[in-house]
Amino acid sequence: MGHSGRGRIERLWPLLFAKPADALLVTSLPNIRYLSGFTGSAGMLLVTSHRATLFTDSRYTIQAAQELAGSGVKVEIARKGLLMSVASHLGRARRRLRLGVDPGNLTVAQQGAFTGILGNQVKWVQAAGLVERLRAKKDPTELARMREAAQLISDVFAAVLPKIRVGVSELLVSAEIEYEMKKRGASGPSFETIVASGARSALPHARATSKLLCEKELVVLDQGAILADYCSDMTRTVFLGRAPVRARRMYQAVKEAQEAAKAAVKPGVAAGDVDRAARRVLERRGFGRYFTHSTGHGLGMEVHEAPRLGKGDGSLLEEDMVVTIEPGVYVEGFGGVRIEDDVVVTSRGAIDLTSATREFLEL
Amino acid sequence: MGHSGRGRIERLWPLLFAKPADALLVTSLPNIRYLSGFTGSAGMLLVTSHRATLFTDSRYTIQAAQELAGSGVKVEIARKGLLMSVASHLGRARRRLRLGVDPGNLTVAQQGAFTGILGNQVKWVQAAGLVERLRAKKDPTELARMREAAQLISDVFAAVLPKIRVGVSELLVSAEIEYEMKKRGASGPSFETIVASGARSALPHARATSKLLCEKELVVLDQGAILADYCSDMTRTVFLGRAPVRARRMYQAVKEAQEAAKAAVKPGVAAGDVDRAARRVLERRGFGRYFTHSTGHGLGMEVHEAPRLGKGDGSLLEEDMVVTIEPGVYVEGFGGVRIEDDVVVTSRGAIDLTSATREFLEL
Repeated sequence: MGHSGRGRIERLWPLLFAKPADALLVTSLPNIRYLSGFTGSAGMLLVTSHRATLFTDSRYTIQAAQELAGSGVKVEIARKGLLMSVASHLGRARRRLRLGVDPGNLTVAQQGAFTGILGNQVKWVQAAGLVERLRAKKDPTELARMREAAQLISDVFAAVLPKIRVGVSELLVSAEIEYEMKKRGASGPSFETIVASGARSALPHARATSKLLCEKELVVLDQGAILADYCSDMTRTVFLGRAPVRARRMYQAVKEAQEAAKAAVKPGVAAGDVDRAARRVLERRGFGRYFTHSTGHGLGMEVHEAPRLGKGDGSLLEEDMVVTIEPGVYVEGFGGVRIEDDVVVTSRGAIDLTSATREFLEL
Repeated sequence: MGHSGRGRIERLWPLLFAKPADALLVTSLPNIRYLSGFTGSAGMLLVTSHRATLFTDSRYTIQAAQELAGSGVKVEIARKGLLMSVASHLGRARRRLRLGVDPGNLTVAQQGAFTGILGNQVKWVQAAGLVERLRAKKDPTELARMREAAQLISDVFAAVLPKIRVGVSELLVSAEIEYEMKKRGASGPSFETIVASGARSALPHARATSKLLCEKELVVLDQGAILADYCSDMTRTVFLGRAPVRARRMYQAVKEAQEAAKAAVKPGVAAGDVDRAARRVLERRGFGRYFTHSTGHGLGMEVHEAPRLGKGDGSLLEEDMVVTIEPGVYVEGFGGVRIEDDVVVTSRGAIDLTSATREFLEL
């Protein structure tokens, strides 16, 4: 986490002061990790203009000290619960604090507890998505890691291909995928690996089950690895045996939709326009109504980040964002096709991070 | 999910009416899965006295219809976002609705959006932990599944033991563990498998890293599998080589602390008393200040559920609860020892679900 700490926290200040707020209470763990380098599963980070303090519990005493050494972030071990510690820290301020918080990352129960302890001492300021905004644009270290995470999953796919065959269960294929990831240094999958075969491939978010792969089936494989804290996310669809015309036509349409969406990616373009580019191709090919999700999403420390590439989404793409491009077509009872790559937004357009072949493989 | 659906929803009603509330908005995914059988990653479930409706999005059209067939739960596919769909459904009620919600499972942003749309039409009623209360006591089907999940992870440990040796990385050991789980039918690990060796074993929640296992090190292995929707959670600590007296003494103390805690488990006993039983043993052995977390937690569809077995916790154990018993001792710079089993609370005391040996293994 070499780039976390002071630099990132300092880039947060102008966003915070613009609200205006005196401090930001960061409650989302990936945001905390991004700003401080702390990787524990419980914590809150309080950022003011002159100090950042991480609150965590006694399970993380040693780990927090190690991870935050040199970051400039102070550690406070909460003895009576995180919330109580943060509240009593805030209660020590000499004046009424304008406290920024992301209402999407704070529960009604947490806010109620804070208000119960602090009463009027804190003025809540809605400060949604500030850290997410920083995180959306990747720095060179992050881009290098994401390139490696994407390469890793491409390599895993190539390694697992010989094991995708009739008679093997979806679960076993997903086990092989995740084993190959870890063997290559991934800390784990960035989401539960999807292996969906036959009619199940028409479920865009099916999990792997004990169902065996059969002759003449579409198989959707959606997989990603976390490598050095950054996620990859890649989908490939293969056919077991010689594919009928219908499956080929579906595949070709999805492939062209993906190419059209990638061609639409540029800094300054609305996310919804990228989605429209994919959707138009599928509509022209008669598959419009079978494309039931968005074209993609931002990717980074989390597998779903800003921006979302959905219908009518107005947020503008910026240089150094990393997004997935993943149109799909799902025909109930027959099967589905999805092709997904990770791309970086550059001044020259989308640059692929994913290198696995996009040809229709008949295994 | 044979037992979900009508039966469980009907058991929810008396809890709901006692609030009193006319309806419950269930926002936690495991709670939704428990009540309806829906396994998707986005949804809200509205339960009234005469109907239950699942709101999800178009990615899950087919899956929701399949999973909820015969459950008595209606499916509504949200076209303009989950929240909008739920709100407009609620808005159609003829009178002001007392709507129960768990403030710990609703964000400030979600509540704000509901209030913005519904204004005064809904009276929010705090209804925390109702479904969790049902979930804490397992029915016979659930207990059978948990026994299998615990047996599976015990088998995995036995299978992986020969691979825990000097020169192998923590990550590779965790990869082997998760591969073996999936080969045996688990859908995945119930949390990121911990393999922490040497000084790293003193971090109670360390992840597996690329560090190689070395001669004369303690290795803490904390692993669990999800099998048919239910979690197991088991920790074993081994030594690479012949253990010094200090490590043996630590191990023995933790083992006795675990036995004392198990002996304290009984219906009607406070969770905090079980914790105290473990803590006392470790204090007597001079390790009290090195036991930096709670003795255990409930286990079920999630790896952390009610009740918590922490210091001073007053909630009472009940028959058919499943909890972990996992005291540990962590000495910075030297290493840690933790032993963890899953047990069912019965009228005859704690019954082990975990069968892996608790002897101190010197590998």
